[in-house]
Amino acid sequence: MMFFTPFISVTVTSLFLLSYQFVIGEKVLLVPVPFADSHWLAQSNLGRALVNRGHAVTAVMSEDSLAERQSAEFLFETFEDRGTRARLKALEDRLVSNAAEMSLAGVIQAAIMLSQEMMKHCDFLLGDSNLLQRLRDSRYGAVVTDPFFPCGAILAAHLQIPHVAHLRTNAYRIDLAATGVPQPPAYVPDFLLPFTDQMTFLQRTQNAVVSAMMSLLSHWILSSNFDGLARKFLGEDETLLSAMSRADLWLYQTDNVLDFPTPSMPNMIQVGGLNVREVVPLAADLETFVQSSGEDGVVVVSFGSIVKTMPTDRAEVWAAALARLRQKVVWRYTGEKPAGLGTNTKLMGWLPQNDLLGHPKTRAFVTHAGYNGVSEALHHGVPMVCVPFFGDQPSNAARVVARGLGVKVEFSTVTADELYQAILHVLTNNSYQETAARLSHLHRDQPQSPMERAVWWIEHVIKHGGLPHLRARAVELPWYQYHLLDVAAFLLAVCAAVLGTVWYSCAFFCRKCCRKSSDKVKRQ
Amino acid sequence: MMFFTPFISVTVTSLFLLSYQFVIGEKVLLVPVPFADSHWLAQSNLGRALVNRGHAVTAVMSEDSLAERQSAEFLFETFEDRGTRARLKALEDRLVSNAAEMSLAGVIQAAIMLSQEMMKHCDFLLGDSNLLQRLRDSRYGAVVTDPFFPCGAILAAHLQIPHVAHLRTNAYRIDLAATGVPQPPAYVPDFLLPFTDQMTFLQRTQNAVVSAMMSLLSHWILSSNFDGLARKFLGEDETLLSAMSRADLWLYQTDNVLDFPTPSMPNMIQVGGLNVREVVPLAADLETFVQSSGEDGVVVVSFGSIVKTMPTDRAEVWAAALARLRQKVVWRYTGEKPAGLGTNTKLMGWLPQNDLLGHPKTRAFVTHAGYNGVSEALHHGVPMVCVPFFGDQPSNAARVVARGLGVKVEFSTVTADELYQAILHVLTNNSYQETAARLSHLHRDQPQSPMERAVWWIEHVIKHGGLPHLRARAVELPWYQYHLLDVAAFLLAVCAAVLGTVWYSCAFFCRKCCRKSSDKVKRQ
Repeated sequence: MMFFTPFISVTVTSLFLLSYQFVIGEKVLLVPVPFADSHWLAQSNLGRALVNRGHAVTAVMSEDSLAERQSAEFLFETFEDRGTRARLKALEDRLVSNAAEMSLAGVIQAAIMLSQEMMKHCDFLLGDSNLLQRLRDSRYGAVVTDPFFPCGAILAAHLQIPHVAHLRTNAYRIDLAATGVPQPPAYVPDFLLPFTDQMTFLQRTQNAVVSAMMSLLSHWILSSNFDGLARKFLGEDETLLSAMSRADLWLYQTDNVLDFPTPSMPNMIQVGGLNVREVVPLAADLETFVQSSGEDGVVVVSFGSIVKTMPTDRAEVWAAALARLRQKVVWRYTGEKPAGLGTNTKLMGWLPQNDLLGHPKTRAFVTHAGYNGVSEALHHGVPMVCVPFFGDQPSNAARVVARGLGVKVEFSTVTADELYQAILHVLTNNSYQETAARLSHLHRDQPQSPMERAVWWIEHVIKHGGLPHLRARAVELPWYQYHLLDVAAFLLAVCAAVLGTVWYSCAFFCRKCCRKSSDKVKRQ
Repeated sequence: MMFFTPFISVTVTSLFLLSYQFVIGEKVLLVPVPFADSHWLAQSNLGRALVNRGHAVTAVMSEDSLAERQSAEFLFETFEDRGTRARLKALEDRLVSNAAEMSLAGVIQAAIMLSQEMMKHCDFLLGDSNLLQRLRDSRYGAVVTDPFFPCGAILAAHLQIPHVAHLRTNAYRIDLAATGVPQPPAYVPDFLLPFTDQMTFLQRTQNAVVSAMMSLLSHWILSSNFDGLARKFLGEDETLLSAMSRADLWLYQTDNVLDFPTPSMPNMIQVGGLNVREVVPLAADLETFVQSSGEDGVVVVSFGSIVKTMPTDRAEVWAAALARLRQKVVWRYTGEKPAGLGTNTKLMGWLPQNDLLGHPKTRAFVTHAGYNGVSEALHHGVPMVCVPFFGDQPSNAARVVARGLGVKVEFSTVTADELYQAILHVLTNNSYQETAARLSHLHRDQPQSPMERAVWWIEHVIKHGGLPHLRARAVELPWYQYHLLDVAAFLLAVCAAVLGTVWYSCAFFCRKCCRKSSDKVKRQ
């Protein structure tokens, strides 16, 4: 077998006049989630790639958001949010700090409160008529939204311009109805459950029940908050779902190597790993620290941008476990320095996570299993110890374990020894390093990188002014027609009519025969 | 908006170390359908592209097949078919000549006979132990099969090498079970029905019933013929479905521009239009004839490689209709010259169809709506008059009409005037030319051409020795688990138990209360 690597250009057959024309200098509007910084991280990465291609990218956000997210690369359109963003951030902080102990009811309550506050935030955005006029006048080629903040879909429908939704997982599952994609619960695990695609009978039961219940619940939470806004800003017959169904493209941060095979629709494009940036050298002092690890290498520990600290007793457990490692450890942690911190461990308030994971000395990644981190580790071939908290993190961790990329521990119950053993297991068992290297190779072997694919599709949407031919008719069908309940009722009615007719005919002739024979008997 | 066209290379972000390594000099085995020349046309085009990439491509076929399909580009491995291919060809001819009048029962009977004869043909292939030894020794990197001849899947499983299935539409629907893809009948029209994705209530009913019945019927026809071969050559627990489920990749000749949006799985790749070759200049005499058409242009008429002639009365209808056109007409027809043939019409036994459709003088294409022709017309932006006969042709025609690419007429009932009016309508109504040009542009706007994509994926399979991570667990589930019938039964039983307990408890306490009060009454 011979390999050579001509990077991209493919000229198998020059037969196709591939009109791969680039659209340069288009205007693109981003509608980010007002809180949840990891979402903005992914969306702004995509925005930056569009800027690098020569597009003018504008983000619409409240003045309060802008104070934190200001950047010279983007243009900004702002509105006054009257404290709604601050309340969303406070809700998020409360959610995150209680995440590990939160019950399902707590999660649902949090979702309701977040949804209500987002609705108010959205109302201030859409209600700013000067802002809307400026957005209309700007004639954007496309709007890129994050459906986690459903306001974007209503804005896109209001502006009547092509709409690209960019998301990690099912956004409250409304994307399922908005794309018409079937997700058979028999082999598609719900993203809130830590199951794989191989489920036991009880897991399948739980999966089916949770999927159905959460779909209904999400639909109710969203509809009760956003259908009113859809009516107010789009028209009497409109709902959030009707606005979302008009999206031309759904860019999913999913990946065939990490995620399990599930059905997809032609307007759903996989761009998992688009957040992975080119590795740049570490700062001098960090590089010195990393190099000092020698052959043993480095373990990177981070719980992402929202879990930067932890209760003191937990921090001591972690410090003790990490101190026992032969490896050097870089730990993203902003809390008070734990008493038991080892000399091998360096605390940092912020990590160049992607550059560290791409560093040849890195041997393992201890992570909360947020998608950004997991996809960076997959890309760079680094095995993981997952410590999931909430949201899609437990299901990401289940994928990491199922694919043989690492192990999982429970944040709130793990002891220092168990944690040490778990990290040691991943460091010393060759299968994790080998699997990580193999899957990294498989993941990178794509005709376009995920970011190139995302940009290509956004430009494709802009060039053709929308992609209505990719939209399944499923989204136009009422639920009972989608599930063929009317057809089933009709067929049952026909069967019942046929059977009934046969039954009564038989009964009628039987009675006639009986009467004749009894008449005969009487006459005898 | 500014456009420029740098053909392919995309360097939005050089962040991704895209390991697009080419696998050169691999051995690939083709298992073609022994009859159905249009299938061999598509498969040999794919084989030729692989040869052009430096691979050694071998086709396994009977000596009888080789006599017709010999080609210097491929290597061949042969076996003795004892007349089975001749009988398959005879069956096909009978099917084709009666196609327009054939009832559903006739089609089913023909399918049964074809399947039986293919089974015998397959038995001679798999039973040739010298052949199998040579195939094993050759260590192919991948087998490319056409599931219309299910033997390929058994051979691939027997050789235990990566398996790429290449097909137009659902191969007897067994591909649906083998990939686990859901095809909701509410918006996915069965490929045997001339429906679009917008169905009336009765069409949805018919679609649901036909899909279900034909799935059961196809499964029965295939299983009864091929499960025995799977057991004989693979092992006691094997079936045709278990062999097919092991396919690593399904290359579908479908296209988002022509076909309706339907769910898909990660191992199902769209390569519709891969048969379209680069246009080469016409032979001198044909070019002279085409140029003589002046501004009016040319109409191309062809019913494909299997309908080359027609009954005399029909031929006269066609000749009369074509004679009335101002355009020049090139008609693929091998029957006796019709008496009413116009001076504008040139009969040819074989057409350079793709080159004619790509010719700037061509104004319309009268076609039987076979996929090869329809996709060539779509690519070149030529509007169509469809005259479908059988198989996927009626549904292809329905797509052409639904997308605004042309009109449809009935072969056996159309009059000369109706035919003339239909062709005239397509020629003179600008919307068809405009839609054809717009959809051609949309269809060509792909990051890779369909053939490049097909070749890329085959090399991807070879490089990684199979793609088991793309295979949905759905294929491992029994049908009742896939449809969650066990879960539904369990939940119903739980509900019944709960309701029953509540009912009996209530009844028990009611009785107790009643007895007490009646005791009281008695005592009073």
